[in-house]
Amino acid sequence: MKLATYADGSRDGQLWIVSRDLRLAAPARDIAPTMRAALETWDDLAPALRALAEDLDGGRVPHAEPFDPARCMAPLPRASAWLDGSSFLHHGRLMEKAFNAPPIPDFGTVPVVYQGGSDDLRGPCEPMPFVSEEHQIDMEGEFGVIVGDVPMGTETEAALDHVRLLVQLNDWSLRKLAPYEMSRGFGWIQAKPSTSFAPVAITPDELGDAWRDGRIQLRLHVAINGREVGRAHGGASAFSFARLISHCAATRRLSAGTIIGTGTVSNDDPQAGSSCLSEVRVLEILRDGVPKTPFLSFGDRVRMEARTDDGSTPFGALDQEVVKA
Amino acid sequence: MKLATYADGSRDGQLWIVSRDLRLAAPARDIAPTMRAALETWDDLAPALRALAEDLDGGRVPHAEPFDPARCMAPLPRASAWLDGSSFLHHGRLMEKAFNAPPIPDFGTVPVVYQGGSDDLRGPCEPMPFVSEEHQIDMEGEFGVIVGDVPMGTETEAALDHVRLLVQLNDWSLRKLAPYEMSRGFGWIQAKPSTSFAPVAITPDELGDAWRDGRIQLRLHVAINGREVGRAHGGASAFSFARLISHCAATRRLSAGTIIGTGTVSNDDPQAGSSCLSEVRVLEILRDGVPKTPFLSFGDRVRMEARTDDGSTPFGALDQEVVKA
Repeated sequence: MKLATYADGSRDGQLWIVSRDLRLAAPARDIAPTMRAALETWDDLAPALRALAEDLDGGRVPHAEPFDPARCMAPLPRASAWLDGSSFLHHGRLMEKAFNAPPIPDFGTVPVVYQGGSDDLRGPCEPMPFVSEEHQIDMEGEFGVIVGDVPMGTETEAALDHVRLLVQLNDWSLRKLAPYEMSRGFGWIQAKPSTSFAPVAITPDELGDAWRDGRIQLRLHVAINGREVGRAHGGASAFSFARLISHCAATRRLSAGTIIGTGTVSNDDPQAGSSCLSEVRVLEILRDGVPKTPFLSFGDRVRMEARTDDGSTPFGALDQEVVKA
Repeated sequence: MKLATYADGSRDGQLWIVSRDLRLAAPARDIAPTMRAALETWDDLAPALRALAEDLDGGRVPHAEPFDPARCMAPLPRASAWLDGSSFLHHGRLMEKAFNAPPIPDFGTVPVVYQGGSDDLRGPCEPMPFVSEEHQIDMEGEFGVIVGDVPMGTETEAALDHVRLLVQLNDWSLRKLAPYEMSRGFGWIQAKPSTSFAPVAITPDELGDAWRDGRIQLRLHVAINGREVGRAHGGASAFSFARLISHCAATRRLSAGTIIGTGTVSNDDPQAGSSCLSEVRVLEILRDGVPKTPFLSFGDRVRMEARTDDGSTPFGALDQEVVKA
């Protein structure tokens, strides 16, 4: 089943169900007013949501409307928490070079995760506002999961039981500010503005075999102003979502509506390109001595969509313009 | 005006107004069901809440009940964000020694702030669960503010306009895990479990002259098992809340219900003691070569209350037992 949140002027928006082929949508308000409400009582509400999804796919919802991603907020506009890992080691190694930073201890064996803002997540077509191009505006194409309540101390083996939905996202980053904040050890406050999400969150069964080993096994196609720069595969993550969840829940409980991200999807394969510009630039430096690709400018458009082997896009597309705040 | 949230089985609890002398309480449900709801439409609802508070103080609320801190959740059990600074430089300098960590760049001139979990904030009398004593369980006595919506790029000069409520809190910390996470640059996920709050959040006018220069000018009395270990003064903060708010809002907007903390209240004056055990221990090491005060054990009780010169406690008391999860 696929779920979206339509803007209605409220902070949490309105829950809608979207058909598998992304053509139709129907309001779920008789079942749950918001995605937040659905996640908080998921076991009670999921059967009714699923029945509506099946009716929608079967053409049996008379009041269905054409699905319109432009009406979408983030599927969960205000999450309980946003915890983002860095589980593609190729990305991390390149960032060490880009930031000229010392290696992160145990980077390949123990997840690193930061906690970002979860109160202002953005929709797939919203213009994305930034204070200044001087901050070196960058994208980070990622996958994520939304969990239900996760008890403190949940082990890796039991962690995937708590996954409710899968998401695709852009963890916007300000590269000029990132190394300084990182050097201070407290994580990022200024270098990580709001994060954006593809229009639909989906239950894991939507991906069939592409949800495997606790990883989203799809290529994430990333384009700037229509030019593809990345098509990295999500299967290359060093840490499964199971490991990331148990890492985050080691000393605290996680509450329903917590989103956990993979970090920038990144592959060792040069054919895969990059899901962020910092990677593109550091590869240029390593090859040519200087970076030639600029960071993002106001007016640039960033599009991201995961694709299956048959060309479908299970999460829909993130397609946003970078604008001045 | 003083506001509290009584537990009612829901995730956000029920908003109550508490009398200035902390003797009486009355439900505010006819005005706003929850603290969250009140903060999201503060300008509309505050006058009615204030009228109820005045009636309560004047003995004109027939259905008022004796105020019971044991019924309290955190005043805002699920905040939009929890952003915690380290603005008492004396604390920071001692922590460098305690963690044997390199100095934080620009520590005295640019705030450091981490983003912690805001989805599971704890009430003043709840037993506080931890996985293991081996993690070196510590307290951190702090003050904080709850803001309304803060636009991106808000300057220091305008930041205090967004302060809605003041709070007193304990930012529980696991010292064994903190230096390792800090060395990795992503902030703390495992070293910072849930944070606890004194029973009432108060409007700034409740403090009179003790709300001055964007600081809470009160002594924070901290005791373990009835023995006072700290009485540090909140006025010594190097950064005002105005500065902390504008730091946090530099590249992102903050949403109503965001809590911003001072970090551990700490004074250079030896008579002031300490608001955390890491400070106590590092001072012992500096004096005697070895620490003699242990970290917290299961069964220990931690009590924290800010006091005015006339002995009143504007926020009530945090008084929790440390327990095994």
